[in-house]
Amino acid sequence: MDLLEVLHLDELSHGLANLSMFPYFDMAHYIVSIMALREQPGVLQLSRVSPLACWFSSMLFCFGGAVLSAIMLAEPLVAPLSNSTSVLLASITWYLMFYCPVDLVYCCAALLPLRLVLTGMKEVTRTWKVLGGVIQAHNKYNDSLLVMIAIGWAKGAGGGLISNFEQLVRGVWKPETNELLKMSYPTKITLIGAVLFALQQTHYLPLKKHHLMLIYTVFTVVNKARIMLTGSSVSPFAAIESTIYKTLFSGHSSYAALTDEVEKTCMDKGAVNGTPSTKKSNEKGAGKHTPVSPVKGQSGSLKAKDESENAQTKHSKKKN
Amino acid sequence: MDLLEVLHLDELSHGLANLSMFPYFDMAHYIVSIMALREQPGVLQLSRVSPLACWFSSMLFCFGGAVLSAIMLAEPLVAPLSNSTSVLLASITWYLMFYCPVDLVYCCAALLPLRLVLTGMKEVTRTWKVLGGVIQAHNKYNDSLLVMIAIGWAKGAGGGLISNFEQLVRGVWKPETNELLKMSYPTKITLIGAVLFALQQTHYLPLKKHHLMLIYTVFTVVNKARIMLTGSSVSPFAAIESTIYKTLFSGHSSYAALTDEVEKTCMDKGAVNGTPSTKKSNEKGAGKHTPVSPVKGQSGSLKAKDESENAQTKHSKKKN
Amino acid sequence: MDLLEVLHLDELSHGLANLSMFPYFDMAHYIVSIMALREQPGVLQLSRVSPLACWFSSMLFCFGGAVLSAIMLAEPLVAPLSNSTSVLLASITWYLMFYCPVDLVYCCAALLPLRLVLTGMKEVTRTWKVLGGVIQAHNKYNDSLLVMIAIGWAKGAGGGLISNFEQLVRGVWKPETNELLKMSYPTKITLIGAVLFALQQTHYLPLKKHHLMLIYTVFTVVNKARIMLTGSSVSPFAAIESTIYKTLFSGHSSYAALTDEVEKTCMDKGAVNGTPSTKKSNEKGAGKHTPVSPVKGQSGSLKAKDESENAQTKHSKKKN
Repeated sequence: MDLLEVLHLDELSHGLANLSMFPYFDMAHYIVSIMALREQPGVLQLSRVSPLACWFSSMLFCFGGAVLSAIMLAEPLVAPLSNSTSVLLASITWYLMFYCPVDLVYCCAALLPLRLVLTGMKEVTRTWKVLGGVIQAHNKYNDSLLVMIAIGWAKGAGGGLISNFEQLVRGVWKPETNELLKMSYPTKITLIGAVLFALQQTHYLPLKKHHLMLIYTVFTVVNKARIMLTGSSVSPFAAIESTIYKTLFSGHSSYAALTDEVEKTCMDKGAVNGTPSTKKSNEKGAGKHTPVSPVKGQSGSLKAKDESENAQTKHSKKKN
Repeated sequence: MDLLEVLHLDELSHGLANLSMFPYFDMAHYIVSIMALREQPGVLQLSRVSPLACWFSSMLFCFGGAVLSAIMLAEPLVAPLSNSTSVLLASITWYLMFYCPVDLVYCCAALLPLRLVLTGMKEVTRTWKVLGGVIQAHNKYNDSLLVMIAIGWAKGAGGGLISNFEQLVRGVWKPETNELLKMSYPTKITLIGAVLFALQQTHYLPLKKHHLMLIYTVFTVVNKARIMLTGSSVSPFAAIESTIYKTLFSGHSSYAALTDEVEKTCMDKGAVNGTPSTKKSNEKGAGKHTPVSPVKGQSGSLKAKDESENAQTKHSKKKN
Repeated sequence: MDLLEVLHLDELSHGLANLSMFPYFDMAHYIVSIMALREQPGVLQLSRVSPLACWFSSMLFCFGGAVLSAIMLAEPLVAPLSNSTSVLLASITWYLMFYCPVDLVYCCAALLPLRLVLTGMKEVTRTWKVLGGVIQAHNKYNDSLLVMIAIGWAKGAGGGLISNFEQLVRGVWKPETNELLKMSYPTKITLIGAVLFALQQTHYLPLKKHHLMLIYTVFTVVNKARIMLTGSSVSPFAAIESTIYKTLFSGHSSYAALTDEVEKTCMDKGAVNGTPSTKKSNEKGAGKHTPVSPVKGQSGSLKAKDESENAQTKHSKKKN
């Protein structure tokens, strides 16, 4: 790499590392978060029926990461509330987004150029939150990589991870789905960031902190802009995910595990299960979930994953 | 105000402030709380099927405020359990209320004169809990008004606020409603108390603590007695609530936000939403929730609020 | 008791008390726990659709006790995660149990002789967990018997106690049942252990700690082996439970409480309920839950308990 280029990038990365999130980047985060809440089904009506529940939901959208990491670290849940300036700023944003005459604020913020800029600024705050979480965990748990990833992930994507309970505040309950079962793009990108920053903090990844901040921030901002401009929902990680899946998680034989053949397989090998009830529950488990069409061989596993996801979604929709 | 009268009230308020809740007022609180639990659908049957779940629910009714504020302040959940005398008293009350021969205790406590007195004493404990929570928060978070209100509210109305999870213990799950969506009278009066005591502690409200305790206690006791004697469910705050609602939360245009007109409104103004999926979710959101009949102008907003509440209730009943 | 026999048992109990759970007993606990998870309906399919949710569920099965007691004592939820060796061991077990080629690990572990040994070793770890929880609570809360029982119970049976939320991770939600409403055998045996160890620690039970450990461990291992070998689901406590139930929890009159007769009963005695709505909710409560056939007299109460349990189960199945 050209030294000059490196020097420039170095200055830029230092500048980014020393940037303060308050108040403009935080404001952008509040605006984009509350817009996302507002665009969910039923929320506008909620804002007329119960402003308090609407406000509480908005605060969970804005400070969800801080709340979840507080729960995980056994810190007071009210600690995020004690930062009065941030809460006031978020509350004003909430009020203007829902109750502004002629809906002026929402319509302006929804203009594509402005929305693009605000979303970019929100992605910058993501880097700060993830890094903040990783460092906080690093101080308390030294070299526990898993804890650092968990706290970084929670801080950066907490709002999405607690979505089931945020929906409960609004009187909505959808237990058939959650961010672990079907990870959305923001949660995925935050997990990757948490892993990278955790590896960097424990010196497994030979990068300086501010360089990684710059690379990660640029990647997230550019990718988010691409998604917004092209409307494409194709994940940039699709290829890597499918490779990891095919390598590690395809399992033993082609969906034998998903049918009652697994019992026969084990029995053919001369294994006898411990209790009769085990066999019953295996068959019950197998018989109850065969909307997935059997696929032969590992090459079809990604297709099968999509099929099973579709089946899962249909199954969820039916349940709904 | 006549000085003599002030002096008398001052003595009375000091007397009230120095009153100990243990054991008579606490007993009254346990009796009234467990009676309220017993009168919920299905609880008597639960007491025969699973005494343990019934006991656990009763403890949540009695100590719900302490549990919720412990969660919020990251204090051990078992701390309320460690007060053995209180737990023993509450457990004895639970046992007599559910399993007394000939149902003697419940029938006596349900006698109107006795029930009136017990409920009045319970209202007195409410003041103590709210004030205790506000002061506890004040010590930890100095001047954070929001935290003081939150902890005071949690301590005073915790049982109601965690009702969804208390019902889960009994095998009941009603996600479509909670105390934020539709606040009951006790939760409302506790919130008001928390706000008043928080303002008093931070010197925004120029009242002495024991004076405010007397005023608040008298107001809650008298109002609760009125509700019990007249059977009236009209809230004393209805006028104030409707004024606040009409002033602050009517929003931009008459329910244009609740129909798909909001998209046309923004588009007419030349705004283009960022992503195509946003538009879809707006329409979906709009189309899915039109049981609220459109109302023109702000004068009809209170009526619309009632209509939307009725629609919400019908919608909830349908979901049930 | 023969002194020699006592001496031998004493050596044995000391040996047991000084045994280290890591790594073999812990491994056995992970293997048996993850097998139990795997045999639940839908989990194999989950492992193909979302390995992350499957892993998270497995960790809750393995470390559920530590997580629940951390919540109750306001300790960081991530503390169990920080024990990297244990988490690594559990994760490897999870991977081999779900994704081993030809499903080798599961089939081997399911062989009855091996499963018997592993389950016995898991029962040994139960003693350690319960005792650990009781002692931890004893250090913090001195002589609060209830807290010691609660923490010991949570540590030993946490995985079962948080089952509703573990199922939520998998997208399953069954609010009509939980371990308090219908206690499974492991949860019951853990509760008994927690009570015994709490009484021993507070010197109400005149036994030495290592003697009680030996007795309790032998009892749990032998009983679990009996259940696995005979396939019998008859609880060894059935007789004691029914005696306690008939003595303490049969209530006032034969199911008068479960019908609307209770209102008439109270009214005949001249009691008038406080508010009209109370009467309505009593009738509603009574009327809504009469699948239990009325039984006369206390001798039939156990039969009625079974009937109501059956009714409850049918009612749950209908709900499902």
